[in-house]
Amino acid sequence: MKKWMVFAAALLFAPLLQAQGGDPEAGKGKATMCVSCHGQDGISTAPIYPNLAGQKEQYLVSSLQAYKNGQREGGQSALMYPMVSGLSEQDILDLAAYYASMPPGGAE
Amino acid sequence: MKKWMVFAAALLFAPLLQAQGGDPEAGKGKATMCVSCHGQDGISTAPIYPNLAGQKEQYLVSSLQAYKNGQREGGQSALMYPMVSGLSEQDILDLAAYYASMPPGGAE
Repeated sequence: MKKWMVFAAALLFAPLLQAQGGDPEAGKGKATMCVSCHGQDGISTAPIYPNLAGQKEQYLVSSLQAYKNGQREGGQSALMYPMVSGLSEQDILDLAAYYASMPPGGAE
Repeated sequence: MKKWMVFAAALLFAPLLQAQGGDPEAGKGKATMCVSCHGQDGISTAPIYPNLAGQKEQYLVSSLQAYKNGQREGGQSALMYPMVSGLSEQDILDLAAYYASMPPGGAE
């Protein structure tokens, strides 16, 4: 993919990246399938998975969108595809709000 | 890209993902270009950038490798390409060790 295409895509999706409005409580209820890898308190259960606790909400939104759009490869990214394929835009916002609201070091 | 290709690539690069041996002190010296976005203490300076403080070392290695291999698109990933293009494998290990060693909530 050429660089100008990457930048054009970034511009195109910029409005989506601004989207907010997630509900942490709703996100908690939707996070049941995330827990086995990313931990009950957002601290991942294996070194190859990222911690999510206290991560920036907007970054989490854009990451989930990127996985859903098949824009992430490498690492364990393939494991995320089936996880995100059924997520709505609201699900993504809620999950991001939930993980962003957690204390960054894990459960207190 | 077909799913079997994703899995084949994951298998192919699995040994790389096991690589460790980063030096946090060396990583600190190499992180000068990371600071403007990811913060002096690994807490990002804008909501669209991820916090890196206390992130899992092995995940950081695989993420940097994925950026370097052009395997990440979406979000602000295009910003990372020029940052990682000159990194050696040892640079990646050192940077990952450095950010993983930071307290997850930011400077204490």
